[in-house]
Amino acid sequence: MTHLDDSPTATAELLTGIKAVVFDCDGVIWRGTKVIPGALATVAALEAAGVAVYFVTNNSTRSRAMYMDKFAAKGMPHVRKDQILSASYAAAAYLQSIDFDGAVYVVGEVGILEELEEAGIPAIGGPDQPPMTLAELEVYKPDPSVSAVVVGADTGFSYTKAAIAQQYLLARPDNLFIATNPDTSFPTQGNFLPGAGMAVAAVEACASRKATIVGKPAPFLLHGVLDRLAASSSEPVDRSSVLMVGDRLDTDILFGSTV
Amino acid sequence: MTHLDDSPTATAELLTGIKAVVFDCDGVIWRGTKVIPGALATVAALEAAGVAVYFVTNNSTRSRAMYMDKFAAKGMPHVRKDQILSASYAAAAYLQSIDFDGAVYVVGEVGILEELEEAGIPAIGGPDQPPMTLAELEVYKPDPSVSAVVVGADTGFSYTKAAIAQQYLLARPDNLFIATNPDTSFPTQGNFLPGAGMAVAAVEACASRKATIVGKPAPFLLHGVLDRLAASSSEPVDRSSVLMVGDRLDTDILFGSTV
Repeated sequence: MTHLDDSPTATAELLTGIKAVVFDCDGVIWRGTKVIPGALATVAALEAAGVAVYFVTNNSTRSRAMYMDKFAAKGMPHVRKDQILSASYAAAAYLQSIDFDGAVYVVGEVGILEELEEAGIPAIGGPDQPPMTLAELEVYKPDPSVSAVVVGADTGFSYTKAAIAQQYLLARPDNLFIATNPDTSFPTQGNFLPGAGMAVAAVEACASRKATIVGKPAPFLLHGVLDRLAASSSEPVDRSSVLMVGDRLDTDILFGSTV
Repeated sequence: MTHLDDSPTATAELLTGIKAVVFDCDGVIWRGTKVIPGALATVAALEAAGVAVYFVTNNSTRSRAMYMDKFAAKGMPHVRKDQILSASYAAAAYLQSIDFDGAVYVVGEVGILEELEEAGIPAIGGPDQPPMTLAELEVYKPDPSVSAVVVGADTGFSYTKAAIAQQYLLARPDNLFIATNPDTSFPTQGNFLPGAGMAVAAVEACASRKATIVGKPAPFLLHGVLDRLAASSSEPVDRSSVLMVGDRLDTDILFGSTV
């Protein structure tokens, strides 16, 4: 692994032509409950140098508002909502970008529900989905207003949720099927736990369909960054002027290289 | 679809050289709570003609003992346990066939636990797996005696079960990973619900491994039928003397053609 020379000259050289830096969060800004040493100073130095800073995370359990609280708690109270691009936000922003006007069945946590609500998109399901018996599921009546299913990380994932998502996707091929992100696991203290990709694989299997991924490594969120840069700039934005800082080859670096 | 001519001559001609008939159950012997018309008479006629009859089912929720009760309730009280080859039995029989001597973590229902118990194989998990919080899962201590995970159909499938299976499979690559069957859905009154394949896909995703399938279309259960025929016959058993009757191309017919 190459360590960056952190002298002012080397930093200035690295940043020649760079208009924006996009940071992954878990493993880059913080790891678990602890801020990564140097992360705050780096962000502050970039902003002082006039470089736009964005934070992109595949964690779909929180909304951007919840992330602002987390940034504040970690010593970065100045991080604005428009600097944060989470996989929960990606789901809502993607639906807005295609002028979606139906309701959504959510397999996931409160972050997705909050982002959909902020986008004015009606949603059912989520953490409040009560467990149902097989007999109840056999006579489940899908809500006719639902025309998309969004699947994200969900520590409450259940047979019931898979079965309901299946009703919306298998029998209704026109309904949209969106996955916040494909990460099959995330690291904890010394081991791994299932990520959004576990629930996505389960629903893809019983729905006999592949989901459209909106988080990393799909380029959707990076296009959001480019759109924001273009809106705040008088000249065209060169894609090579955006630097991606991540710790995972399969999501972050692939994400950075797809645009 | 070709319908069989059910005249005695046509039946006798079809059965020339046939020593055994293997029936799928769901959709062939019964559908939901109802026996398929003609199924009982066909089985009785075959047995009267000296043809061995076996019942193979990918439903892993019941043990063979539970299936004997179901056959009796459907008017076939003479069906013996050794005529029944269920996916739950396949998991236990497969482990016995490789002289497995560890314990098993089960993602599935009581049928698998009953078959493992009858085979003398210790098992944990199954329907009694209590839900755990993320904090509890982060410090979960895998049972060191467990050296295989069996995943089957499970209407109680949960994040907790996926996470525990992941602990046994991702961090312990030597542990066996067995799936009763790959069926991603099963038909109910007018729609579909998730089958074993939903849970299998979920665990495969977060464990970053593929399961070994023991039910249809894997040939393991058909080898069991051939072994039984050989044991009861003085002459070698020709594989073409076994007829498979099923209703699904992706499991039954592929199963019949793999041996």
